[in-house]
Amino acid sequence: MPEAHVRRRDALRSALRDHDLDSLLIVDLLNLRYLTGFTGSNGALLLHAEDEERTVFCTDGRYLDQGARQVPELEQVIDRASVLALAGRADKDAAYRRTGFESQHVSVDSLDALAEAAPSVELVRAPNLVERLRLVKDDTEIEALRMACAAADRALADLIEHGGVAAGRTERDVARDLENRMLDHGATKPAFESIVAAGANSAVPHHHPTDAVLRHGDFVKLDFGALVDGYHSDMTRTLVLGEPADWQRELYDLVAAAQAAGRAALAPGAQVQAVDAAARAVIERAGHGDDFLHGLGHGVGLQIHEAPALSKTGEGTLSAGMAVTVEPGVYLSGRGGVRIEDTLVVRDDGPELLTLTTKQLMVV
Amino acid sequence: MPEAHVRRRDALRSALRDHDLDSLLIVDLLNLRYLTGFTGSNGALLLHAEDEERTVFCTDGRYLDQGARQVPELEQVIDRASVLALAGRADKDAAYRRTGFESQHVSVDSLDALAEAAPSVELVRAPNLVERLRLVKDDTEIEALRMACAAADRALADLIEHGGVAAGRTERDVARDLENRMLDHGATKPAFESIVAAGANSAVPHHHPTDAVLRHGDFVKLDFGALVDGYHSDMTRTLVLGEPADWQRELYDLVAAAQAAGRAALAPGAQVQAVDAAARAVIERAGHGDDFLHGLGHGVGLQIHEAPALSKTGEGTLSAGMAVTVEPGVYLSGRGGVRIEDTLVVRDDGPELLTLTTKQLMVV
Repeated sequence: MPEAHVRRRDALRSALRDHDLDSLLIVDLLNLRYLTGFTGSNGALLLHAEDEERTVFCTDGRYLDQGARQVPELEQVIDRASVLALAGRADKDAAYRRTGFESQHVSVDSLDALAEAAPSVELVRAPNLVERLRLVKDDTEIEALRMACAAADRALADLIEHGGVAAGRTERDVARDLENRMLDHGATKPAFESIVAAGANSAVPHHHPTDAVLRHGDFVKLDFGALVDGYHSDMTRTLVLGEPADWQRELYDLVAAAQAAGRAALAPGAQVQAVDAAARAVIERAGHGDDFLHGLGHGVGLQIHEAPALSKTGEGTLSAGMAVTVEPGVYLSGRGGVRIEDTLVVRDDGPELLTLTTKQLMVV
Repeated sequence: MPEAHVRRRDALRSALRDHDLDSLLIVDLLNLRYLTGFTGSNGALLLHAEDEERTVFCTDGRYLDQGARQVPELEQVIDRASVLALAGRADKDAAYRRTGFESQHVSVDSLDALAEAAPSVELVRAPNLVERLRLVKDDTEIEALRMACAAADRALADLIEHGGVAAGRTERDVARDLENRMLDHGATKPAFESIVAAGANSAVPHHHPTDAVLRHGDFVKLDFGALVDGYHSDMTRTLVLGEPADWQRELYDLVAAAQAAGRAALAPGAQVQAVDAAARAVIERAGHGDDFLHGLGHGVGLQIHEAPALSKTGEGTLSAGMAVTVEPGVYLSGRGGVRIEDTLVVRDDGPELLTLTTKQLMVV
């Protein structure tokens, strides 16, 4: 892991030099984790554009041991006001004269405090420099995503094998059972509040599990993921309890075809809007365009939702190494809905599927 | 509930008038929840200082139904860019000429976007107006805190009754068992990542549960809480597995005495530093001042840690209706530690205890 962090800091240094910055003050805890591996709840980093020796990490006394263990290669300062302490540090040394700050994260009030703590430093807006690096995942990150996806795959397989999706159980029962099985398979915790939606509830895109009881003939939509080493997996499968009706099979086949089209469109250089359009066209041709209420997918990594957005209004193109979801859905209000979602990595030779659960219609 | 939200908005209006503001733009989701009851993940509120009819709530299409259900009494605008949409709304009407914004939450970049969306509005820094109201809990909030504390109390009682704290189990096993029992008793989810720390690990203030096995003679420190209706409970108990050694009983009695002193100091008008000092003095007199590594306590509510801080560096005085924790600890590195923590409400006639589990040394 330390090698990965050293590589990431080096990549960031190259961005700093492009912006004529002497250093960058990192205040966002996910960006801090990405660059150092530190997982505590208070910390900051002053990254020098040239010099690892001048790169200083700060956290508070609670994390004295943890900081030293997780970030042994950097100088560690202990101060509860970690961001201001590093600003003060920059103020004392001309080597940090032009220091960038994460203007998308630093609040209006915090910038005042920074300026007061570092009067001799030129504080320069430098938004999204780390986020831009995080768009393309390195091997360490993809391995964590793979483990997170595997925990979710195994949990669902266990759940079904043990009769966990059955008439008479409540949505809430099923969600808890599934989440406990993810923990059994190595998840730190669920990646987000699991969605289990039965019958007509499956037509609500972001339904929260209730005491509604699963019944024979229901669609059961499960949207869930695992957190492993700070990385999130995201998968949706829609099952049928008992023999599917014709309308259910048709709806399922339609969404599966759209999902396959979306996956097939994942390629380096593809416009994100075009990927969304590839899946959406399948659903629109079937006359259900208005029943696909959300974007096709999103980036996934240290956050469950991150750039790029695969949607009508998304911007930019895909690159090899981006990790994204593909999750079309068609929702028939009052009847039921289907969503099918995978987490994948964009690759030169076609996307790598990380969520391996079958997309054949599962009848349980 | 709607009456509580109307009352809170009226209280905020009085603060707006004190600051000569025509309106306030609320972007923080917890502040939004506090003022409206809305629980979605995207939304904002433009609160007019005089006029509920001019107070506008915005969320996106995913929450169309939920917003209408949770905030029926306010005009609802649907727009994914909720904050900017409301800024644009303010721009079109002279009734919002001087509009405050939450400068502790709005980022440097977001303020630019706001100014662009509302060129004719005077955007005025107005930090912490809602947070200041949230310091004193109303009856609706205290009832939610009471339920959250009850879920934690019952979960711990169940855990002990079912032999859940036993030699041979891992810290992780115990934490999961405890968390599942909180869900059984009505918790939405754990209020934070539960701490279960056995033996020497109990000397680490914020230890994360590991595969370390509980052994006969260990201290077992459990710091955990439940989330109910958005409100957090926070409780720590330290047990002994089997007959306590003399040093364990002495350490326990010391921390219990400090905790009692801290609770006794909770009164309207008390300086928060004095409350910390009251408990700390007991530990210092016993020669363990350096082994009490953190503040005495913190406010608790929609956040697990919120103002006021009961610590050496905390500022201000207590008022009736504030909800706080009292949690002294003494940590003997390599041997073990004790922390005892309650959640309480400051009252005129002495603090109201919300976490009701015994503070007698429990031997399991």
